Amino acid sequence: MKAAVFYKPGPKISIEEISLEKPKKGEVLVKLAAAGVCHSDYSFMIGHYSPTKAPFVMGHEGAGIISEVGEDVLTAKPGDKVIFSMDSMCGKCTNCSRGNPTMCLTYGRTFTMPDGTARFKKGNQDIYHMVGTFSEYTVVPEDQVIIVPNNTPLDKACTISCAVVTGVGAVVNRAKVQVGETAAVFGCGGVGLNVIQGCSIAGATQIIAVDNVESKLNMALKMGATHIINPTKDDPVQAIMDITSGGVDYAFEVVGSTSLIELAFSTIKRGGTTVIVGVPATNSKITIDAPTLLFDRTIMGSLHGNANPRVDFLWMLDLYNTGKLKIDELITGYRPLNELNEAFDDLISGKSIRTILTFE
Amino acid sequence: MKAAVFYKPGPKISIEEISLEKPKKGEVLVKLAAAGVCHSDYSFMIGHYSPTKAPFVMGHEGAGIISEVGEDVLTAKPGDKVIFSMDSMCGKCTNCSRGNPTMCLTYGRTFTMPDGTARFKKGNQDIYHMVGTFSEYTVVPEDQVIIVPNNTPLDKACTISCAVVTGVGAVVNRAKVQVGETAAVFGCGGVGLNVIQGCSIAGATQIIAVDNVESKLNMALKMGATHIINPTKDDPVQAIMDITSGGVDYAFEVVGSTSLIELAFSTIKRGGTTVIVGVPATNSKITIDAPTLLFDRTIMGSLHGNANPRVDFLWMLDLYNTGKLKIDELITGYRPLNELNEAFDDLISGKSIRTILTFE
Repeated sequence: MKAAVFYKPGPKISIEEISLEKPKKGEVLVKLAAAGVCHSDYSFMIGHYSPTKAPFVMGHEGAGIISEVGEDVLTAKPGDKVIFSMDSMCGKCTNCSRGNPTMCLTYGRTFTMPDGTARFKKGNQDIYHMVGTFSEYTVVPEDQVIIVPNNTPLDKACTISCAVVTGVGAVVNRAKVQVGETAAVFGCGGVGLNVIQGCSIAGATQIIAVDNVESKLNMALKMGATHIINPTKDDPVQAIMDITSGGVDYAFEVVGSTSLIELAFSTIKRGGTTVIVGVPATNSKITIDAPTLLFDRTIMGSLHGNANPRVDFLWMLDLYNTGKLKIDELITGYRPLNELNEAFDDLISGKSIRTILTFE
Repeated sequence: MKAAVFYKPGPKISIEEISLEKPKKGEVLVKLAAAGVCHSDYSFMIGHYSPTKAPFVMGHEGAGIISEVGEDVLTAKPGDKVIFSMDSMCGKCTNCSRGNPTMCLTYGRTFTMPDGTARFKKGNQDIYHMVGTFSEYTVVPEDQVIIVPNNTPLDKACTISCAVVTGVGAVVNRAKVQVGETAAVFGCGGVGLNVIQGCSIAGATQIIAVDNVESKLNMALKMGATHIINPTKDDPVQAIMDITSGGVDYAFEVVGSTSLIELAFSTIKRGGTTVIVGVPATNSKITIDAPTLLFDRTIMGSLHGNANPRVDFLWMLDLYNTGKLKIDELITGYRPLNELNEAFDDLISGKSIRTILTFE
């Protein structure tokens, strides 16, 4: 079985033959149908942030078909079409039980199975994984698959698992943008474009997209941006102040750059909120003027769209099926798994927004 | 007429004879009945933060009786008992019209009258003021007085204008603490104790008070704290983690210290919020770990309890009148205006929580 394995930061990811154990109690084996190549995968590759366990099978966005289930699996069966959730949920802690499984207190964020072990092996070596979607097959706990109707196109729906939920969820679940409010979105990659369409769906009336890459700004307009700013041409802070007469209600940072978070903070008005959506580097710090914050400003983080995947993935899919959520437009190409490195090249050069990996 | 005038930071405030112009169009002249001595006044004195205009008549918390009104005053008349509001509101901008006058876009925060001039004079010199409650009389725009029933004890109700609204408002209006949630409160002075009783009124079930001064911690228990921590004896972060099994929903910083804001941030759990209530020094910065913030944590500022004084002061007064809001307990003494410097000494030594200045 082929999979993309991360050993340590470097210029290329190796696609190699590894093996996979059978699903154990409460686990499911999924044959991958499609997997999105996300900037977060690249961030591991370049050492922007570190996995808690390595080596590991890359990929956290994807969809597939269940081929086998372990003992005691209650909600999934072979043949079910599924989208992966990035976060494991126990279903029993206070956060899970109040509808906040992304904040599960039992499992948290991990590169192991809930029991602390790995399912992938290379010879005798354990190979860990978060979701392991850059692999022909993966094993995950039952709670990390969301079953979708049989007529769902998995090559599109796979993006719900990361790009859509992280972006739209940040707007709807975390920031709770209301009709008539204003937003600036810093970074118009796969997640940023979903922040933009989330704002549009939520009824925001000024949606200002900021990116250095013209093709991404053009895409931002298609996703609902009302204004675009290229910082290589215009001062984004001044432009946002001019457009909004004094600052936005929400500034979303969707890159993971601390200097960009600080810049985003400078564009919100009194009462406004800066939302961190991009994943900042391990141990990176932001520095904020305390009296400015005192004047009723807010900075919040939004991890994975503060989602309840079992609920949110289905309404996001409904929005797609009824033409209100754009996914087809985000997908800039398909490549087989063994062209993952070329997919990263396209992403970093700005040539692609979302490349979907395909499997035999 | 006697008033406390700030010229520049120094060890004492001078109480001196100055004059006051008649109220102009839309303004009211108020004879002071009572004024609370707040730590913010002291912070100006020691240069912790700077007024936008000086010299100025100190004092922003107070209550009195209207003695004269200018032309076109619509809602107040001589003889009305009033509590002062710290913030001027135009009543017409988008923030005022949506019920957020503390964020008035027309006036903002100022040491002048709305027309940019001063009403106090010393000879030919202009003496500015925010509210000017450390004075036998003051003139403010009509929108900065909230009329209260005739049977209101002004020597108590005056504290609503700063200590109560800033503390209780931070909990109810800004953080929106819910029944069953948990809070830590760093700093148990006049405002901090009102954060504590705000949490208690809102139904928080673990309310952890943190202060170096034992007498303030004892007072915290009377205001509804369920736990007290003295950092000179115990590590507050570890103690809070132990009490709450992993962190609070809300950590309120009520001192204005950037290092204490950073400490407060380290005590909130995923999904939790740090609320800045204390006024940080001009140009002071906080430094926050960005990935920790990403995990659904929030930092927000709360200026003057994010209040709508015309609405909020009346329900706060109702809470006092029905025994649910404690004010008498906060008042540790009365002094005439000319003992202001002694009142500051009592405040800084920890001997007093709120001293009320009285007038002839």
